[in-house]
Amino acid sequence: MHRYRLLIEYDGTRFCGWQRQPDQPSVQQALEEAITAFSGEVVGTQAAGRTDTGVHALGQVAHFDLEKEWDPFRVREALNYHLKRYPVAIIECDAVGADFEARFSAKGRHYEYRILNRRARPALELHHVWHVPVPLDADIMHAAAQFATGLHDFTTFRAAECQAKSPIKTLDRLDVRRELDHIIIRASARSFLHHQVRSLTGSLKLVGEGKWTPEDFKAALDARDRARCGALARPSGLYLVSVDY
Amino acid sequence: MHRYRLLIEYDGTRFCGWQRQPDQPSVQQALEEAITAFSGEVVGTQAAGRTDTGVHALGQVAHFDLEKEWDPFRVREALNYHLKRYPVAIIECDAVGADFEARFSAKGRHYEYRILNRRARPALELHHVWHVPVPLDADIMHAAAQFATGLHDFTTFRAAECQAKSPIKTLDRLDVRRELDHIIIRASARSFLHHQVRSLTGSLKLVGEGKWTPEDFKAALDARDRARCGALARPSGLYLVSVDY
Repeated sequence: MHRYRLLIEYDGTRFCGWQRQPDQPSVQQALEEAITAFSGEVVGTQAAGRTDTGVHALGQVAHFDLEKEWDPFRVREALNYHLKRYPVAIIECDAVGADFEARFSAKGRHYEYRILNRRARPALELHHVWHVPVPLDADIMHAAAQFATGLHDFTTFRAAECQAKSPIKTLDRLDVRRELDHIIIRASARSFLHHQVRSLTGSLKLVGEGKWTPEDFKAALDARDRARCGALARPSGLYLVSVDY
Repeated sequence: MHRYRLLIEYDGTRFCGWQRQPDQPSVQQALEEAITAFSGEVVGTQAAGRTDTGVHALGQVAHFDLEKEWDPFRVREALNYHLKRYPVAIIECDAVGADFEARFSAKGRHYEYRILNRRARPALELHHVWHVPVPLDADIMHAAAQFATGLHDFTTFRAAECQAKSPIKTLDRLDVRRELDHIIIRASARSFLHHQVRSLTGSLKLVGEGKWTPEDFKAALDARDRARCGALARPSGLYLVSVDY
């Protein structure tokens, strides 16, 4: 068997997410069909992050195995050819050893959340930001965010359907800053819980508009109670940026 | 009469450009219909730059007159409400004096051209960049571009159908730089000829891929011959960024 590692960009707007679902278009299905189309082999793929419906990727990482050995450059070209009708692009393809696993070998994941913070809705970034028309204070959001970095029980900021065994995770970085009309949130960790970034972002938005103090945000975290989480931020603003190995 | 100045963002992909055309959707028509919808008045609008089909705006400026005096904040909110089904957003609205003319009072126009320069086509920026898969050298493109700054006869870099009286213009700035996989070109002038930025960009792309030397670029400019221009860059990469008054 020969293993290939892919670096993938996609627009998640019209996908049900990374993972295959019956009767819904997923990135995984589009990719696996493209692999079969060029190689004739039916294979499964594994990704570093199982992004949700509407969530985008600038640097998703996936791997798969083929019986036949191919030049990775040709694999990339063939996949991009067969993916033409989808908003999915293979940026890189490398041959890797059998010990490489896109999901389990990952040592760090980096997400970015983009809020468009102005009265007028987006004309150019319609499905690529969360539009928040009320003014947000990025500095106070950043201050609150620092309560969430480090080792915590993230039950408050975790989907009810999250399948992780433990809600305890180490969040390495949660930065919030303004860039003109945008609020950019950067989150880094070895791994994330389901909906963790969108849950944190939804609650930080309450801090930014003055409905919560940073201490309210800390109290919500400390409560370890999903009911204390602010409304989930929209998937359209979330990007899986890169994965470290 | 009361005059209003608008700052407008739009996605040009599905418009025939700024200017009204019979039987084709234009930004101007969408805007003028929105003005009539809230005010009951039928008016004409004038814009700083008549962008082409597929060209975008981050900061187009337009003006129009109404018999009735309105709070500019209400004008902006009403226009955004009536423009909801279009990728057009009114970022700002101000009351201005009758001597302000969006087109004729403009003292400077700033355009940005975005090339995605990598093998894989764009997944997230499909209609928002020009995809050039062959490697481009931004430094040599920048060096060539400097031959075009200052006062020149831009006949080579002007559409055959350009209606300007003279092909002689002063180009204040033409910068090219790489930002990871993107090549960003910034062009500033008091005014531009029709297709000038896309013509310059198309020829700079030939320099970037090594088909032309910077001296070939200069010779094309000096020839004052439209036939010497490289193939026009795609409209999808062009943005009207801002206008100075």
